[in-house]
Amino acid sequence: MSADLKKYIRSVKDFPVQGIMFRDITTLLIDPKALKIALSELMDFIDGLKIDKVIGIESRGFIFGAMMAEKLGVGFAPIRKPGKLPAEKVKETYRLEYGTDSIEIHKDAVNPGDKVLLHDDLLATGGTAKAAANLIEKLGGEIVLISFLIELTFLKGREKLGDYNIKSLISYDSE
Amino acid sequence: MSADLKKYIRSVKDFPVQGIMFRDITTLLIDPKALKIALSELMDFIDGLKIDKVIGIESRGFIFGAMMAEKLGVGFAPIRKPGKLPAEKVKETYRLEYGTDSIEIHKDAVNPGDKVLLHDDLLATGGTAKAAANLIEKLGGEIVLISFLIELTFLKGREKLGDYNIKSLISYDSE
Repeated sequence: MSADLKKYIRSVKDFPVQGIMFRDITTLLIDPKALKIALSELMDFIDGLKIDKVIGIESRGFIFGAMMAEKLGVGFAPIRKPGKLPAEKVKETYRLEYGTDSIEIHKDAVNPGDKVLLHDDLLATGGTAKAAANLIEKLGGEIVLISFLIELTFLKGREKLGDYNIKSLISYDSE
Repeated sequence: MSADLKKYIRSVKDFPVQGIMFRDITTLLIDPKALKIALSELMDFIDGLKIDKVIGIESRGFIFGAMMAEKLGVGFAPIRKPGKLPAEKVKETYRLEYGTDSIEIHKDAVNPGDKVLLHDDLLATGGTAKAAANLIEKLGGEIVLISFLIELTFLKGREKLGDYNIKSLISYDSE
């Protein structure tokens, strides 16, 4: 966890709805030094693990996901909202506070036995990340690391995710 | 234009709607060698230009946009669909075949005089890229390069964009 990077995150009250404190990473991304440090610290999470590919969750998960894939010299695959991916795919539906949401991955994004680094920008309740992990495992992939830029620890997403190797760079203990 | 990279693009008939041949970049992204070559050829487009930041268009434009920013050691800023960016922003609305669409950028994403590399994965009719260029110029940025992975030349987006320095890696002359 990087205390220094926290100062690059912008907190926006009542976004997208009343009562939510939104943690905005665009103020980190726009700063060349902060971007470099964040990527370097995310790469440190890998810590010698063998990674065959990086999978990022739409759409902010594409940003550091793609940079990590490039640094590792491996391929990148997106997990997207329904209706965006054109070829054969699998879908996972998960529960939200009100209603449900779904995400999809191409079947050829993962080969059985692939060692996968799953990345998203934010760990909140863990619903999306859990669904993403399910998709990867349905296709026979092995998740060796799940990395996040930000973790909202008070929402206990880590508990929902369970036994994975989960790392986050910046954490918030309360709203 | 890279003939070699074209073989990594998957063409999907009738997606997202009947009559459209969709050019799918996920088959390029998943291949470590193709990903590396594509990024290297995109970087060649810069050709000594001074770049202060890279701006990528949601969401596939985030992928190579982020990688280019990292390679250049500059910051990255996203242009997003309405309602996604939490802080002060400007919006641009543009015409589609039926109806309109809008995109937004944070006001603090661009400083007056910034030399900007604008990136998206696909140049089709040019509507989105033109709106993105307008947003950047509204904030006082100077667009020194607009890069695309794929250009559908038969849709003449380049004409709509006008006088910019426009480069694309892979082009299709017909559907």
